[in-house]
Amino acid sequence: MNPQNRQAKKLQRRKQQSKRSYAAARKPLWQPPRAATSLSIEEDPLAANYGNIPLLDLQSKVEADLKAWTKVGDLTHELKGKEVLIRGRAQTMRAVGKNMAFIVVREKGFTVQCVVTAQPDVVSKQMVKFAAGLSRESIVDVHGVVSVPSIAIKGTTQQVEIQVSKLYCVDKAMPTLPINIEDASRSEKEIEEALQAGEKLVRVNQDTRLNNRVLDIRTSANQGIFRIQCQVCNIFRQFLLSEDFIEIHTPKLIAGSSEGGSAVFKLDYKGQPACLAQSPQLHKQMAICGDFGRVFEIGPVFRAEDSYTHRHLCEFTGLDIELEIRQHYTEVMDIVDRLFVTMFDHLNNKCSKDLEAVGRQYPFEPLKYLRKTLRLKFEEGVQMLKEAGVEIDPYGDLNTESERKLGQLVLEKYGTEFYILHRYPLAVRPFYTMPCFDDPKYSEEIISGAQRVHAPELLAERAQACGIDVSTISTYIDSFRYGAPPHGGFGVGLERVVMLFCGLNNIRKTSLFPRDPLRIAP
Amino acid sequence: MNPQNRQAKKLQRRKQQSKRSYAAARKPLWQPPRAATSLSIEEDPLAANYGNIPLLDLQSKVEADLKAWTKVGDLTHELKGKEVLIRGRAQTMRAVGKNMAFIVVREKGFTVQCVVTAQPDVVSKQMVKFAAGLSRESIVDVHGVVSVPSIAIKGTTQQVEIQVSKLYCVDKAMPTLPINIEDASRSEKEIEEALQAGEKLVRVNQDTRLNNRVLDIRTSANQGIFRIQCQVCNIFRQFLLSEDFIEIHTPKLIAGSSEGGSAVFKLDYKGQPACLAQSPQLHKQMAICGDFGRVFEIGPVFRAEDSYTHRHLCEFTGLDIELEIRQHYTEVMDIVDRLFVTMFDHLNNKCSKDLEAVGRQYPFEPLKYLRKTLRLKFEEGVQMLKEAGVEIDPYGDLNTESERKLGQLVLEKYGTEFYILHRYPLAVRPFYTMPCFDDPKYSEEIISGAQRVHAPELLAERAQACGIDVSTISTYIDSFRYGAPPHGGFGVGLERVVMLFCGLNNIRKTSLFPRDPLRIAP
Repeated sequence: MNPQNRQAKKLQRRKQQSKRSYAAARKPLWQPPRAATSLSIEEDPLAANYGNIPLLDLQSKVEADLKAWTKVGDLTHELKGKEVLIRGRAQTMRAVGKNMAFIVVREKGFTVQCVVTAQPDVVSKQMVKFAAGLSRESIVDVHGVVSVPSIAIKGTTQQVEIQVSKLYCVDKAMPTLPINIEDASRSEKEIEEALQAGEKLVRVNQDTRLNNRVLDIRTSANQGIFRIQCQVCNIFRQFLLSEDFIEIHTPKLIAGSSEGGSAVFKLDYKGQPACLAQSPQLHKQMAICGDFGRVFEIGPVFRAEDSYTHRHLCEFTGLDIELEIRQHYTEVMDIVDRLFVTMFDHLNNKCSKDLEAVGRQYPFEPLKYLRKTLRLKFEEGVQMLKEAGVEIDPYGDLNTESERKLGQLVLEKYGTEFYILHRYPLAVRPFYTMPCFDDPKYSEEIISGAQRVHAPELLAERAQACGIDVSTISTYIDSFRYGAPPHGGFGVGLERVVMLFCGLNNIRKTSLFPRDPLRIAP
Repeated sequence: MNPQNRQAKKLQRRKQQSKRSYAAARKPLWQPPRAATSLSIEEDPLAANYGNIPLLDLQSKVEADLKAWTKVGDLTHELKGKEVLIRGRAQTMRAVGKNMAFIVVREKGFTVQCVVTAQPDVVSKQMVKFAAGLSRESIVDVHGVVSVPSIAIKGTTQQVEIQVSKLYCVDKAMPTLPINIEDASRSEKEIEEALQAGEKLVRVNQDTRLNNRVLDIRTSANQGIFRIQCQVCNIFRQFLLSEDFIEIHTPKLIAGSSEGGSAVFKLDYKGQPACLAQSPQLHKQMAICGDFGRVFEIGPVFRAEDSYTHRHLCEFTGLDIELEIRQHYTEVMDIVDRLFVTMFDHLNNKCSKDLEAVGRQYPFEPLKYLRKTLRLKFEEGVQMLKEAGVEIDPYGDLNTESERKLGQLVLEKYGTEFYILHRYPLAVRPFYTMPCFDDPKYSEEIISGAQRVHAPELLAERAQACGIDVSTISTYIDSFRYGAPPHGGFGVGLERVVMLFCGLNNIRKTSLFPRDPLRIAP
């Protein structure tokens, strides 16, 4: 048998199996619907081909063959003529007379057009009416045959149709939704173009989206964003595991006041004053003192800051790394460099469908980065800004404006949007940052990272100088009295990485259920 | 050139390189020690071969060639005669006269014996004195040649020695430590045997260990435990990613009172009452309503319970899964089954060094599990207990004792320590658990999982019946009004998985910095 025949036989066999198993699975459920719906109230000999599945029938009566279902995202030309079963949401319904209805069915952001046409012995007019009357976002099971229309289908991601033979509603959505997914999926460009053509389309604003986040995250762009986010974590871990790091989980409930400052959430811990960790900083360093050599953590980070900006959250996901340094802090920069280049490469190569989905609604240029990440000293940055007419304090921090300006200058000069700015002024760095050996006004900063102080006396001195009550972090400082290897590390917010890579304008777009000073729900 | 020759040449070349690069890296640091230590105060022409490295020299002056260092765990017979450089801790020092000293150096739980012998032009008597006088747990860099002694070396993991030529102290530990790693590494059996031989060895109790966790986690057993824990997370994720799950990060700060009950940490969130999530339950279900299909999360879980048992913590790492169910809750059990068998197989096959390290201090039998996990209905369990003379309420929960008894009966009858007990009585299940279609007194329980209620009316009804103020979880309940797929999932504590697998007697052993009602430090 040649391979093509074998393939065809296989598909045929699978089709039969899927038919069989689904039939077997479904049959016991399909006595004529007990409480007939208002839509199929007339006597209909074809009533078994459609209807609402009662909740009772969804409570695990019969085991399913998961292979019976095809993913909407997998519906392509190659399936032409095949019978398929899909589960998804009825995104939009449109009746054409009494004999035909179109349903756009969506699963995980992928959409396909389903056609319900009245025909003897299969589809009754009542079934067409049932289809057209589905409420948006209801969950449906659709059986049908894949067909390929002669012209391109607008408004769906898949370029095939399904000629429906059976249609069951698994769960009904309420008739009127707070937002429509169609509206929430529109790009600014579409809205502008429609406006110029005299049509005013609904624009769903950020707050409405976030108030109804369960609906908002159903858009193709949002599905893409969170699949990309998942891959960022995945590559972060896989890269670090391959470099001999181990993953740790540090406590988020800590005594005292974490790293100091006002940006701390306080709580009562069984009668003791406690707070939520502002970062895993102290405990990841303690893990290094505990001999793990190289550690990383992905976990929540809590900041009670009153920052109402497009890039601050009160809770975000920290990607944190700490490692022993043999001799030089460039060892930390080397990890940053290779980690992020590996990550960006992977996203570009493996997440193209998701990046496209994001780009359709929020157009962006691919991130520009170099094979070897540019390392720029803070003083070089200051110099570049000076030459461009921007004077900043060489021992102060960059503000948002000067940071943006420097980014622009770096892009022009070096052709990269991702670079490492290091040897930051010590004055703007946390107390646990190691002062520089040749110029104590500079420390070594990487993304948000550095070599750390591993000498307890110096650490206590620096903490005090930074206004921290040393007694509240004594177990941390004591950790360095039992022999401590030189070490360094960095931290970066997962949400910021995704925001940077996809060129998004607000960090709330990359947090599943964002928390800011005004929002703690849903 | 034959492969062996090539191999030899390569090693030779690497050795030379490593010598060269380390020499180059080190040289600028080695002016004769500025502030000579008290130990080398006499004039010593070989002073450059040892000493304390001043902190200033550790602040990133010269870049290192990381390949110059060999891991202690990699020191084997094959390196005989080779020159190596290691960094580790001086675990124990022993002088033999004035001409010889032994240092056991430990890195990540692996130990090797280093021999410092006075010899002309290389090692001075002062250097032997310096070696013998190192404080325990100090970080040292040791240069030397690997030798293989004729008899087995007791008390070190590696069966080679290093004949030391250079020895630098990178960071000095304080002279007296709260606990010694040797003491903390002893098994009960060793202590008992010594006692019978008339020697009383130090036994470090659990609280002392936890108070000095940074020292405690340096033992080989603890290093092994946390490397195993890292692999549990790794396999959990890799398995789920390969099954089309995506990783999510749900908020830990939530409005209202989470899933209700008293076991909740409360806090003030910018003037609003808030609490820490008792599990990602509500938000992972909302992610399912948001179309992600299959999701998982690894993250902290907070329980303010007053449980002072060997298996409860106030903060632990939850491994959580939620997935759409096509037709039957067995789909969730199938995932549990394959996930854990995959994980156990991997741990047995890939973590043998770590399992051995744990077993040396805490001996245990390998976990017994079946290729296909046993699924036992709750009522079957009740029947087995009844037959063994243990009467329990068939609609109540199992207590610790009956659970243990059932585990024992299952082991005897089926030869497994890992099984799924399902169809738990509904009365003992959380409000979001789907009642069973054929017997409403039972729900479907898996580890700690089940099919969930996806009908908002039923959900509100169940919440109310469980005494929960429905208004505090309205955004959660509303999520099911916009069309909700049938779904289910489960959660399990990372610390419990490791505890189960390694047969450990206390969950505090598997938490890096455990939190219980009495402990929020270090």
